[in-house]
Amino acid sequence: MKAIKDSVHGHVRLGDLAAELVDTPAFQRLRHVKQLSTVRLVYPSANHTRFEHSLGVYHLACGAVEGLGIDDDTADHVRAAALLHDVGHGPYGHQTEGVIRRETGRDHDDIAWLLTDADRDVCQILERNGLDPDRVASLVAGEGGLGALVSGELDVDRMDYLVRDAHHTGVPYGTVDTDRLVSELRLAGSRGGASDPADTELVLAEGNVATAESLLVARSLMNAVVYRHHVSRVAGAMLERACERYLDRSETDAATFRRMADHDLLVALREAVPELGRRIERRDLYKRAVWVGLGDVPAGTVDAGHGEERAAEREIAEAVGLDPESVVVDVPSRPGLKESGSTVVVDGVPQRLEDASELVSGLRSAERRRWTLGVYCPEERVDAVSAAAREVLGLRTASPTA
Amino acid sequence: MKAIKDSVHGHVRLGDLAAELVDTPAFQRLRHVKQLSTVRLVYPSANHTRFEHSLGVYHLACGAVEGLGIDDDTADHVRAAALLHDVGHGPYGHQTEGVIRRETGRDHDDIAWLLTDADRDVCQILERNGLDPDRVASLVAGEGGLGALVSGELDVDRMDYLVRDAHHTGVPYGTVDTDRLVSELRLAGSRGGASDPADTELVLAEGNVATAESLLVARSLMNAVVYRHHVSRVAGAMLERACERYLDRSETDAATFRRMADHDLLVALREAVPELGRRIERRDLYKRAVWVGLGDVPAGTVDAGHGEERAAEREIAEAVGLDPESVVVDVPSRPGLKESGSTVVVDGVPQRLEDASELVSGLRSAERRRWTLGVYCPEERVDAVSAAAREVLGLRTASPTA
Amino acid sequence: MKAIKDSVHGHVRLGDLAAELVDTPAFQRLRHVKQLSTVRLVYPSANHTRFEHSLGVYHLACGAVEGLGIDDDTADHVRAAALLHDVGHGPYGHQTEGVIRRETGRDHDDIAWLLTDADRDVCQILERNGLDPDRVASLVAGEGGLGALVSGELDVDRMDYLVRDAHHTGVPYGTVDTDRLVSELRLAGSRGGASDPADTELVLAEGNVATAESLLVARSLMNAVVYRHHVSRVAGAMLERACERYLDRSETDAATFRRMADHDLLVALREAVPELGRRIERRDLYKRAVWVGLGDVPAGTVDAGHGEERAAEREIAEAVGLDPESVVVDVPSRPGLKESGSTVVVDGVPQRLEDASELVSGLRSAERRRWTLGVYCPEERVDAVSAAAREVLGLRTASPTA
Amino acid sequence: MKAIKDSVHGHVRLGDLAAELVDTPAFQRLRHVKQLSTVRLVYPSANHTRFEHSLGVYHLACGAVEGLGIDDDTADHVRAAALLHDVGHGPYGHQTEGVIRRETGRDHDDIAWLLTDADRDVCQILERNGLDPDRVASLVAGEGGLGALVSGELDVDRMDYLVRDAHHTGVPYGTVDTDRLVSELRLAGSRGGASDPADTELVLAEGNVATAESLLVARSLMNAVVYRHHVSRVAGAMLERACERYLDRSETDAATFRRMADHDLLVALREAVPELGRRIERRDLYKRAVWVGLGDVPAGTVDAGHGEERAAEREIAEAVGLDPESVVVDVPSRPGLKESGSTVVVDGVPQRLEDASELVSGLRSAERRRWTLGVYCPEERVDAVSAAAREVLGLRTASPTA
Repeated sequence: MKAIKDSVHGHVRLGDLAAELVDTPAFQRLRHVKQLSTVRLVYPSANHTRFEHSLGVYHLACGAVEGLGIDDDTADHVRAAALLHDVGHGPYGHQTEGVIRRETGRDHDDIAWLLTDADRDVCQILERNGLDPDRVASLVAGEGGLGALVSGELDVDRMDYLVRDAHHTGVPYGTVDTDRLVSELRLAGSRGGASDPADTELVLAEGNVATAESLLVARSLMNAVVYRHHVSRVAGAMLERACERYLDRSETDAATFRRMADHDLLVALREAVPELGRRIERRDLYKRAVWVGLGDVPAGTVDAGHGEERAAEREIAEAVGLDPESVVVDVPSRPGLKESGSTVVVDGVPQRLEDASELVSGLRSAERRRWTLGVYCPEERVDAVSAAAREVLGLRTASPTA
Repeated sequence: MKAIKDSVHGHVRLGDLAAELVDTPAFQRLRHVKQLSTVRLVYPSANHTRFEHSLGVYHLACGAVEGLGIDDDTADHVRAAALLHDVGHGPYGHQTEGVIRRETGRDHDDIAWLLTDADRDVCQILERNGLDPDRVASLVAGEGGLGALVSGELDVDRMDYLVRDAHHTGVPYGTVDTDRLVSELRLAGSRGGASDPADTELVLAEGNVATAESLLVARSLMNAVVYRHHVSRVAGAMLERACERYLDRSETDAATFRRMADHDLLVALREAVPELGRRIERRDLYKRAVWVGLGDVPAGTVDAGHGEERAAEREIAEAVGLDPESVVVDVPSRPGLKESGSTVVVDGVPQRLEDASELVSGLRSAERRRWTLGVYCPEERVDAVSAAAREVLGLRTASPTA
Repeated sequence: MKAIKDSVHGHVRLGDLAAELVDTPAFQRLRHVKQLSTVRLVYPSANHTRFEHSLGVYHLACGAVEGLGIDDDTADHVRAAALLHDVGHGPYGHQTEGVIRRETGRDHDDIAWLLTDADRDVCQILERNGLDPDRVASLVAGEGGLGALVSGELDVDRMDYLVRDAHHTGVPYGTVDTDRLVSELRLAGSRGGASDPADTELVLAEGNVATAESLLVARSLMNAVVYRHHVSRVAGAMLERACERYLDRSETDAATFRRMADHDLLVALREAVPELGRRIERRDLYKRAVWVGLGDVPAGTVDAGHGEERAAEREIAEAVGLDPESVVVDVPSRPGLKESGSTVVVDGVPQRLEDASELVSGLRSAERRRWTLGVYCPEERVDAVSAAAREVLGLRTASPTA
Repeated sequence: MKAIKDSVHGHVRLGDLAAELVDTPAFQRLRHVKQLSTVRLVYPSANHTRFEHSLGVYHLACGAVEGLGIDDDTADHVRAAALLHDVGHGPYGHQTEGVIRRETGRDHDDIAWLLTDADRDVCQILERNGLDPDRVASLVAGEGGLGALVSGELDVDRMDYLVRDAHHTGVPYGTVDTDRLVSELRLAGSRGGASDPADTELVLAEGNVATAESLLVARSLMNAVVYRHHVSRVAGAMLERACERYLDRSETDAATFRRMADHDLLVALREAVPELGRRIERRDLYKRAVWVGLGDVPAGTVDAGHGEERAAEREIAEAVGLDPESVVVDVPSRPGLKESGSTVVVDGVPQRLEDASELVSGLRSAERRRWTLGVYCPEERVDAVSAAAREVLGLRTASPTA
């Protein structure tokens, strides 16, 4: 059994199948995809990659399956899915997910296309070891009680990234108790004594309301302080615009784009979209012309689609005589908190956390309060863009903050 | 400048006055008073003492005063108060606070009697160094905006103990960002431009709603998982009963009792109250006969005073034919969350956290949900005591959990 | 399986036998015996106990036995021995070991008397679970290749205490890589293919010379900075003298003394040996009158036995007109480094580390350089005692350092 | 004062000058230069960059200058030098240093050319703030007692990287006590009471032999387990060959090459030297055909220069019919241990550590033992290359290890 030293979990021990999968180009590529994309422009130590994160998720999955009472074959599929759950990510991870979805119709956790292509190493290795690639892909997509372990409200993905992001940013809020979480997971029959695994539900055992809450709270505080830090959002929005222009201007198609790594993208953007590319590389970012909360934004604007967002950018740019590339309208999706749907056993009955914990509604309100719409542009045009954006987006107020 | 190595903050550097104070018997005694009293019976690594905690509080206070813009003399008083804030604690800290209050009328942070007694080392050292012992005592009692730094919703006491308790229990929830907290504290004039320090208020600077929330959340989760763990509560309640009996039976007066250290108390209890003393020492604890939430307890019982609690114990014991020493009725005070009154600057205006954060009401509800009344007794009498207690306390239900 | 949260290893999972053993008075007593006795007077966070240390040693042993290819019954004995290895310690651990050895002829790891007494809980539990108490006792005594895992140059005891002492003192030097050490241990037949377990030898697998060196170095640096810090040595020597006088003066016999816990001893000393007892409790320690290295001490003095040490104390005290209790002559045993005899596989052949690593002789020299003889007394008599001690002990020089 | 959160030191507070310097393109480029180049192929969490390392070095320098008693202007120069000490590094840091030195004659710490070019931001910022760029450059080059703080045996560079590399690899050996090291540094007049700063020497204060040893030991163990891990060496040697070929084949000159970042280099190599470039990117590395210690290598080979190394590669490749690109001869420089020249005050007299500590010669021997010559090639040709290399390099033995 091969052991790899990880800064978060100590030694991660790889079974034979896992060791083979790690050596494929598809998995090695994850060494070159950072976990937190533009967050490193705020927290400079946050350079960790999806490679070590994937090893960590595999490690936690190995711990979790021990307590679930499932057969070896099923456990093999779950472990493989945990290891491979991120191979579908494009360069800069979530930051290019929107672009890729619009171009290909696929999310990062839809990896059937990748796993089941008989030409590919990953598919061949799975089959040679007696695993069904389709079944692995459906676990990665989060289907069933076991899929929920890989991608769901109580998944090992989230447990690993919260702790890992805390370790690498230096912000302690993500430090959940992975050891306890993993050992308290159970599979409950969702309808009476159903023995069909598809009918099971992943739950936290009795006595773990506070454990579940801690996961929710960690996510909420990390959102506020790390994941949605305004500098990271500005850089991320600039990167997304740069990628769209790159795909428009170059001959690179979406399928190729999706397989690029961070370093490929940085170089490609600098060459094809020099102004934005250079700014991202040097952290010479746009400033905030508008930064307003939910209460100041009309519902139509909150729910604006990608097309309307871009149209607004063009309109604002025209109004102030700027190149459309120089105005970024950044409307996050409506506030939510996926973890609030996790299930905890209370007095013997599985309950949704939002029913078992009064904290959930408080956290949801906090997410709503923290929701912010931003408009960004070069520093010297902040005042003009602020005024124009207020008009175009129908904002009630719009105080520039820079 | 003398440096002491601390496992939490690295080197704690002591000024000359602090070094002198540390060498007094009153402060050295804190080496023998554990920070978490009976929690170590659940989390065996939690053996840290009020000595190192006091050094940590001093360390954080030194950091905080730098950003408050106060004069040197005031800063000296604040630092001394931070260092000395716990010298008034009895053996086993908070666990004997009730006993001592009933006997002496004094809380642990009322230390004027101790600091201003001209015979005492501490008082002499303060005066020889030009400090006013009364002023130090009033800071320890939490008076004014600077007193709030030592004892208040945003005090350095809480910052240190959350992080320290997390380090020593291994439960990560308490790991707040002390560095950020300390550097974001400000003194705001509470009434316009008032320059009288008594009129100031301690606040967190702009942009720190999530910082303040993190403190609240850390406290709430540590309450649930550590501070109010049922094993610690059972042992604590047994200890309190044992101390009362000890004071009844021995010639030790409350003033002497208050100056004992943990080891003195353990030995004294084993000799004077052998059954309870021996059980606490060997962790051979009573079990839970009753463990019920707020909804099942009549208001009269929730608000029962000490006398009524003891009367109920006698009544239950009599009903089942047990020695009154063998029944413990443990009614915590009504749920609350002191930190929710902390003040944060939002859009330039100091606001109470409960007004600025929707999380507060969720956390308050969680505290209410976690509130539990317990009745404890020797394992073999759990069923009988459960039935009798239900009757005596007027409980709606009472499921034994042991 | 019961899990206990440990601040060093996370969750320690106890098998059924271990859980039963933990609940015995003999094991619970370890909650009241500090791991580092008087070191806490220098490093105030170092209040950890032999209770959590024993759990940690058990945890590491569980990991190690997995890789050794031994049968279940043998593994059960090894795990039990690891858990129980410290139950023979007296109060203040190693600090009272000399006193106890002189009085009873037994070392702390000679626990056959304790495990095989049919009246005792521990013995009964072992037998009820099908274990042989004698075999457990011989493992604790370090016999055979597996005994070396519990008590030997590569034992899990040392791995745990180095990491734990680092965590609690804040001094990082002890932070060895326990995960790697534990997974690289192997049992080698010491004579060809011998299958008799008594003929096996515990070794580190190929490629671990640096791993073994790291253990040696960690120990050497922790010796220098923590374990043999002069303040801890002064307090420890005072404690040993106080214990001797206590045994002389009270009716407590050595067998009872040995079963006391730290708090019992502190109270007993304060009552029976008030001057020394009070000084230890308040950290009002003697100062160094003499502090000299190996080169300045005649061989006869270096090898002086306990009787000669005490005679010298009396002689010095008489010369300066002090009570013999007020002079402490502290001659450590000759410098050595037990870990240098550990065995590592190099190019397929087990070699003693001192043959495989040139570092060993360097570390031995460093231990020699750090060896120091001390004479301690009340601060106001340092000069007189220094002169008298120089004379009595035949020292070449003797510079007071206080 | 701007604060940046660092995963190792907590908040790093930047003075105004530092904040300006951080915003220059020359400094921002360090975000894209990894601290440990190819080590991440062994320790996947080791993705930290010279950007956060430089902030850490600045942070430690700020702490160190406080205790040195130097004037503000000198302190400003030292802090600026600490911050800028790595701006001269090429892509992949030390890994390209040889190539750059051969092409430009400059080492990474020779940055006068960079700081004193009046066209550059860095130079302008220094001058605008009243600093002398030449003086900063000479501190970075390690000149004088204060230069030794930036680049010398006791420099803050090494303190930061040991701790940071430990944090990010998960290998604990580098965890030195930076807090103690920094606070114990002193400037000693090297010739009597000389007040000329150029005549001073950086030393550790009395009582720090073990502190100095800990630094040496940490470096030695990190060398063995991390910095010179064979996988990292293989990848590094392949990268160096690829860079040489790239400079031969492309129009990029050395000056431009030196200013590239990691991502630029990865893309450029994949395009210009596809076989090696692709292998490095995918961690599809050559295997070891030869891996032998100092005792098996003739002195002439140990001291071979770069030209002879490349000639040997060609000769071996020709002998087995391989492309010269497919054979790598990797002869490290002779073993040494720079830190052994650090100075510690012992009994009032500054002494070189090698005179004060017997550990040094042991560590030097360990470095000699660990010195290894490697020859690497594609896996399928390992046997043939091994035989040919043995012949060409005149090795006494050559056991393939792969």
